[in-house]
Amino acid sequence: MSKDQASAIHPARSAAIDSWDFETDVAIVGYGGAGSCAAIEASDAGARVMLFEASSDSGGSTALSSAEIYMGGNGGTRVQRACGYEDSSEDMFNFLMACQGPQADEAKIRTYVDNSLDHFNWLVDKGVPFKDSEYKERAIMSLTDDCLLFTGNEKAWPFREIAKPCPRGHNLYIEGDNGGPLFMKIMSENVSKRDIDVHFETRALRLVTDEEHNVVGLVIRQNKQEKTVRAHKGVVLCAGGFVMNEAMLKRYAPFLLKGNAPTGNPGDTGSGILMGLGVGAAAINMHEGFVSLPFYPPASLTYGIFVNDRGQRFISEDGYHGRIGYYSLTQDSDRIYLIFSAEDFASYQQGNYLGADIAGTGETIEELESELGLPAGNLVHTIEFYNEHAAAGEDPQFRKSKEWLKPMAAPYAALDCTPGRGVFVPMFTLGGLDTLPSGEVLSADGSIIPGLYAAGRTTAGLPRRAQGYASGMSVGDATFFGRLAGIAAASHTS
Amino acid sequence: MSKDQASAIHPARSAAIDSWDFETDVAIVGYGGAGSCAAIEASDAGARVMLFEASSDSGGSTALSSAEIYMGGNGGTRVQRACGYEDSSEDMFNFLMACQGPQADEAKIRTYVDNSLDHFNWLVDKGVPFKDSEYKERAIMSLTDDCLLFTGNEKAWPFREIAKPCPRGHNLYIEGDNGGPLFMKIMSENVSKRDIDVHFETRALRLVTDEEHNVVGLVIRQNKQEKTVRAHKGVVLCAGGFVMNEAMLKRYAPFLLKGNAPTGNPGDTGSGILMGLGVGAAAINMHEGFVSLPFYPPASLTYGIFVNDRGQRFISEDGYHGRIGYYSLTQDSDRIYLIFSAEDFASYQQGNYLGADIAGTGETIEELESELGLPAGNLVHTIEFYNEHAAAGEDPQFRKSKEWLKPMAAPYAALDCTPGRGVFVPMFTLGGLDTLPSGEVLSADGSIIPGLYAAGRTTAGLPRRAQGYASGMSVGDATFFGRLAGIAAASHTS
Repeated sequence: MSKDQASAIHPARSAAIDSWDFETDVAIVGYGGAGSCAAIEASDAGARVMLFEASSDSGGSTALSSAEIYMGGNGGTRVQRACGYEDSSEDMFNFLMACQGPQADEAKIRTYVDNSLDHFNWLVDKGVPFKDSEYKERAIMSLTDDCLLFTGNEKAWPFREIAKPCPRGHNLYIEGDNGGPLFMKIMSENVSKRDIDVHFETRALRLVTDEEHNVVGLVIRQNKQEKTVRAHKGVVLCAGGFVMNEAMLKRYAPFLLKGNAPTGNPGDTGSGILMGLGVGAAAINMHEGFVSLPFYPPASLTYGIFVNDRGQRFISEDGYHGRIGYYSLTQDSDRIYLIFSAEDFASYQQGNYLGADIAGTGETIEELESELGLPAGNLVHTIEFYNEHAAAGEDPQFRKSKEWLKPMAAPYAALDCTPGRGVFVPMFTLGGLDTLPSGEVLSADGSIIPGLYAAGRTTAGLPRRAQGYASGMSVGDATFFGRLAGIAAASHTS
Repeated sequence: MSKDQASAIHPARSAAIDSWDFETDVAIVGYGGAGSCAAIEASDAGARVMLFEASSDSGGSTALSSAEIYMGGNGGTRVQRACGYEDSSEDMFNFLMACQGPQADEAKIRTYVDNSLDHFNWLVDKGVPFKDSEYKERAIMSLTDDCLLFTGNEKAWPFREIAKPCPRGHNLYIEGDNGGPLFMKIMSENVSKRDIDVHFETRALRLVTDEEHNVVGLVIRQNKQEKTVRAHKGVVLCAGGFVMNEAMLKRYAPFLLKGNAPTGNPGDTGSGILMGLGVGAAAINMHEGFVSLPFYPPASLTYGIFVNDRGQRFISEDGYHGRIGYYSLTQDSDRIYLIFSAEDFASYQQGNYLGADIAGTGETIEELESELGLPAGNLVHTIEFYNEHAAAGEDPQFRKSKEWLKPMAAPYAALDCTPGRGVFVPMFTLGGLDTLPSGEVLSADGSIIPGLYAAGRTTAGLPRRAQGYASGMSVGDATFFGRLAGIAAASHTS
């Protein structure tokens, strides 16, 4: 641990600061999706804004992502309506609540849903382009310039019975998986157009508090020197998550270490969370994260079944890749196999991210079962039971949707999808500072910490767990609640 | 939230305290298992000790428990050896590591194991009686005055292959489930014999820190007045967990709310954890807790099988009740059934804690399956597959031990063990302050907070999760690491 990190936990005290190197109204830490949106809104609300970024350019983890944005409800965004979807806010709300399970933050979900159409329009107004078209394949992101996509578990049971399925993932109008860089280019142009004082290669070291525990500023390091920043209205922490901090992962989210591909930027070291903890903030949902087994495309593999080393199915295969990743990682099983009919394998080599090897093949199920070393007779039953009901368009065990049900025909093959055996298992953190929808940070006793705001993966935001994740939830959360944090900070009077 | 709780998060500053109402070397918060052991050891190390307890008597949650204590290794305790067990430290270490999974704290486990025999002898020296005898039934605690019991998953797969099974749960020499009150009576007598200044009906409100963030004292409330305590050597937080604080459970451990019987004393409100957080301490493992489906005794139900609403088995039924509780609560299933042959039901009404109702019966499996509304054909397969292999003394899916394998014979019955449908699901928290084995509290950046110590359920101790829990781990952890915290605080020089 560097000296900077070790000293981040305790705030500096304003009484010990004779003069400030910088003065502003709102000081924002981190220039990614959340920080840029916070800066734009705080500036548009009339506040002086300083933006501090540790690296030498804007972008954060948002620029590295696909920048899908989860939006809808309110009768539908312009794109949803153009594609024939009349999305309802209640459906979107009920869906999001079910996704997050016992960890759901109802106030955040309600605020997010009620303002989702406004958020779409705000992004469009800022220059973010969305084509009025739908990408209809089952995929992780749009690989064309088409916009709208089912990005989560909307059509999978039990979600499809809780809320009418509607696609809400909005991909930017750009060919291929290039939404992130474009999104951050546009946001950065918006920041540049405004009177926002941006400091690159500047690391936030610690917060500054007064005698009443109000956050009144920030200590930064710039050109090898420590400098003080007085933030008259507030500090907004948008410094990312902690997926790049292995010690912190081990301590707070050891489960995530089952993944092998930390997804984020090198600045995702948890520094914003530590700064918050140092002033008594609560960090919640810290054990949770996004994990995934990205086994589609090709979508045809969805006709297959996942089984554990007991030859049992354990999840409906038509769910989101993160949901299937979560259930695979928690199976308490030495092996996870995706078993499918050879006829559905055709395009596997093209475009698949998972990198799973063939673990066995068989002209009969018995042959495959034996080759995989599964308990004799159980895989046979699992597939016969599955096939018999699939032929009738039913899945009484896991309620896979009819669209993906057909009897599996010989010959069969199995992909070894076991985490830790060569497959790609991306992960990132979903725990962080507990905030109100406004971005105000809550202390461990539930009170508001005056002058402190946070958004993005520095917070426990709207997305709370892999089994209910949908692509677009994190960038959606970071940009939307980043905006609210900027607005709230700008209006704060100390 | 009371005003006291709301103000607990920020420490008082020593510079603002003109004179102290009390002065001592070591101030201990909480007079349960951890606090009493910390007080005795700190006193025996020559420190002046003050002990603050919010209620009007000693006891804490330890007095409400069975006070089983998990001990062994080092060739065996006196009781283990008398009962013919030569326990090895490596077996005990490997077992405990496997139990805690990715959350295991290796340093704590190593220290606990290496000193386990010493701890047994220390307890005996303090007057804690253990009979040199074994309770041989599969049970939650000894219901006679016998001592030694298998209290965890020692004999269940995969643990039995990781470490040679050995019973390590030590019950006190007293008839029935009365170990807790006796244990705390003995510890309280030991405290009384020493020059330890005990203050009942005294609530610890917040810590006191100096300008360098050292913990130097405590603010308490006594007789409706706030008073200050200078602790020259250290403060030891032994204030219990947070299972009685519903807001904190909802925030940090929403999963535990699937339980319906908070197990602890009314003071388990998380106040010690909040005080630690207020000075920058890390709270880890906060989402985890003990949960259980205490379905035995009668042990004969272990011949049955647990299934989910898909008719699948999901865990070996010979495991610890907490392990089976954990897997039941995480099944993502509308129902959890324990299915058994009527011949194993005989004694169910007597001595069972679970309170599950009969959900269905059948002269045939088909009849039972239909009565339970399970997908037709799958329970039939599950039981036929199970029976076929059980007849050969094998369980290729879950590796239940031979001792509990026999084909299930008609007629059959099912108990509805679904959490939330009337069954008793006890729970308590296993998250808290991150400490070194010495009890020194670690800040969120990994540094030691000088002057602050903690033990028991205020900390993330040795036991970390329900699926690897064994009865005796929590009182074992609290008493052993309470002692170390008392010793470390007494030797601290500020």
